[in-house]
Amino acid sequence: MNRDDDPAADLLARLFLTRVIEPGDEVGGRWVRAFGVEEVARRLRGGGERLPGVSETRWAGLRARAAVAEPRRDLAVARDAGVRFVAPGDAEWPGQLDDLGDARPLGLWVRGRPSLRIWALRSVAVVGARACTEYGAHMAVTLAAGLAERGWVVVSGGAYGVDGAAHRGALGAGGATVAVLACGVDRPYPRGHTELITRIAEQGLVTGELPPGDHPTPSRFVLRNRVIAALTRGTVVVEAAHRSGSLVTARAAGRLGRFTMGVPGPATSGLSAGVHELLRGDAVLVTDAAEVVELVGDMGELAPDRRGPVLPRDLLEPGARRVLAALPARRAAAAGEIARGAQTTEDDTIARLYELRALGYVERHGDGWKLTRQAMISIRDGSRRC
Amino acid sequence: MNRDDDPAADLLARLFLTRVIEPGDEVGGRWVRAFGVEEVARRLRGGGERLPGVSETRWAGLRARAAVAEPRRDLAVARDAGVRFVAPGDAEWPGQLDDLGDARPLGLWVRGRPSLRIWALRSVAVVGARACTEYGAHMAVTLAAGLAERGWVVVSGGAYGVDGAAHRGALGAGGATVAVLACGVDRPYPRGHTELITRIAEQGLVTGELPPGDHPTPSRFVLRNRVIAALTRGTVVVEAAHRSGSLVTARAAGRLGRFTMGVPGPATSGLSAGVHELLRGDAVLVTDAAEVVELVGDMGELAPDRRGPVLPRDLLEPGARRVLAALPARRAAAAGEIARGAQTTEDDTIARLYELRALGYVERHGDGWKLTRQAMISIRDGSRRC
Repeated sequence: MNRDDDPAADLLARLFLTRVIEPGDEVGGRWVRAFGVEEVARRLRGGGERLPGVSETRWAGLRARAAVAEPRRDLAVARDAGVRFVAPGDAEWPGQLDDLGDARPLGLWVRGRPSLRIWALRSVAVVGARACTEYGAHMAVTLAAGLAERGWVVVSGGAYGVDGAAHRGALGAGGATVAVLACGVDRPYPRGHTELITRIAEQGLVTGELPPGDHPTPSRFVLRNRVIAALTRGTVVVEAAHRSGSLVTARAAGRLGRFTMGVPGPATSGLSAGVHELLRGDAVLVTDAAEVVELVGDMGELAPDRRGPVLPRDLLEPGARRVLAALPARRAAAAGEIARGAQTTEDDTIARLYELRALGYVERHGDGWKLTRQAMISIRDGSRRC
Repeated sequence: MNRDDDPAADLLARLFLTRVIEPGDEVGGRWVRAFGVEEVARRLRGGGERLPGVSETRWAGLRARAAVAEPRRDLAVARDAGVRFVAPGDAEWPGQLDDLGDARPLGLWVRGRPSLRIWALRSVAVVGARACTEYGAHMAVTLAAGLAERGWVVVSGGAYGVDGAAHRGALGAGGATVAVLACGVDRPYPRGHTELITRIAEQGLVTGELPPGDHPTPSRFVLRNRVIAALTRGTVVVEAAHRSGSLVTARAAGRLGRFTMGVPGPATSGLSAGVHELLRGDAVLVTDAAEVVELVGDMGELAPDRRGPVLPRDLLEPGARRVLAALPARRAAAAGEIARGAQTTEDDTIARLYELRALGYVERHGDGWKLTRQAMISIRDGSRRC
């Protein structure tokens, strides 16, 4: 079979390249832009001359990686682990990642029910020090819970300290959270967060650029941060020492035109020093979720353009339509009640509710969910049309 | 004797008005601007028609206060207490107070050796909550000590909490501090700060608008804050709850074109909430004295224009000239050693050294003082001219 006739050739070439080219490698990004994924893959496999911009030694290194890459196997392993691959152009691809230019991921591996694209529409990154203080952990939990309660998706890096507290805060509030890992999404890191990351995959999303089984490295952690920054409308740094990785995320967010925010702490705390450095620059000081939403919420009007249109009800996925149909007309309902109405699990219902929230159909109301005014009007108009 | 022929008539009229018109009263300020102090005093004493802009009741109230004013007695009481009166146009008047327009003080009562005008040239306000936390007190002491060590004068309100800690930090570093009171400067308030304020009067300056023996009121506290803001190059708020008086000082500083700064604290602390509110606006986040000086130091080039020219050595007061002459040519010396050389007390020497610092002649060097490069050049050139 000629590979060029294979409808999955582009996908397989991309999968292959995620094994060969490191995340964020802009030389690789330029190759893809100039020659297309299939041609780049063909050359790396030895079917043509060396690609431009790399030394012979470096080329040999890439060729060695290429020799052991098994994209079909990666895809099979991923499928068995409930992991899908989302590539630029796919329906689930978050368009805002295109802002990364040649450093755009080749694709993202995704674990979890919800649509990454739709969840990312109304998402905020909450990041910070691994070795955070009790104060930092408290602020991360409180902020994330507050964001979740306001229907915002909390994105973080799955690490110890602030990241873990942010994920837990969102989960604890029955909210939506996304972990962006610097390793294969089937291989939770750090080990001590295996249960947490499993829970995020069940109630939310776990994603990352690296293929199944791949391990994190210091540079992968740093480059992962650009994905967190690009995916969200803004990044909140809770605690960070000088030269912390979280400052990389915040500065990337700034360069990408996203909001950068910082939670102040005692001037005597080394773990707030990096945040204060940000706040002496362009970052905005925030002390609670309301202040975060006040800032990032203003970008709502940019969303249709940059993050894809808000879907009319007919174009919702069947799962989301069932959940929407299960919401009572004039009152709030708990996720459990809605789940029974929609004949699905509570986890699936919550995932759908946050999708519907991002699309403007529902809003949180204390512990429950209800239709928005606009949704009621659109449903009423829809019924009339029937 | 006709009062108009009395060379002290303007002074006596001003002294009289400080008994009748409340600090910051802009109606009174407009009268003074339109009619001059002597005419306003004459009318308030009953020698002419009612002044414009006040009701008959209010006028009667002012007339009642005028009836009991005894400016000559106030001056005598003040002189006995070692207090002088500094009026606009006097050599010691800090010209930057003119920025207050019609709310400019009629004059300032001053206790202490140094020149208020010269000390105010390089001064920063450090203010904050009375009921501050240990963290707030620690930051106020540390900031004030750091400012003093860099040759800056620390201005505050003499109150409990942050103000007192700021004064103590400056004094503890052998530095210069000014307390601006909302009562007569011979009548320290609060009572519990009697010793502190006495020590400030000995080593620094105590000043205020109110005549001897007068007491503070809530509105006098608020209006005192405009003097702190106007006197200094910038205001640092260390801790402040929402609606704290320190925020009034900071906002006044902002309106007057001075720098407003805030020390961050935990987002969970109500006593940092007011500071964070400022920092979400135009105020700059600062965590140490170096950051404060970095900001306010940039205004140096504005000083000649706005704060009077830097004096050539021949125009220094004899006391300051003696201290300058007592500094060794090429090394730093402690204040005690300089005092012995200048044949004066250590307190007087420190006061003079901060004056000379403000004028660019000397700088602090660890615990000692030394001539600046410019001073050495000017002294060498001066000697050559002899």
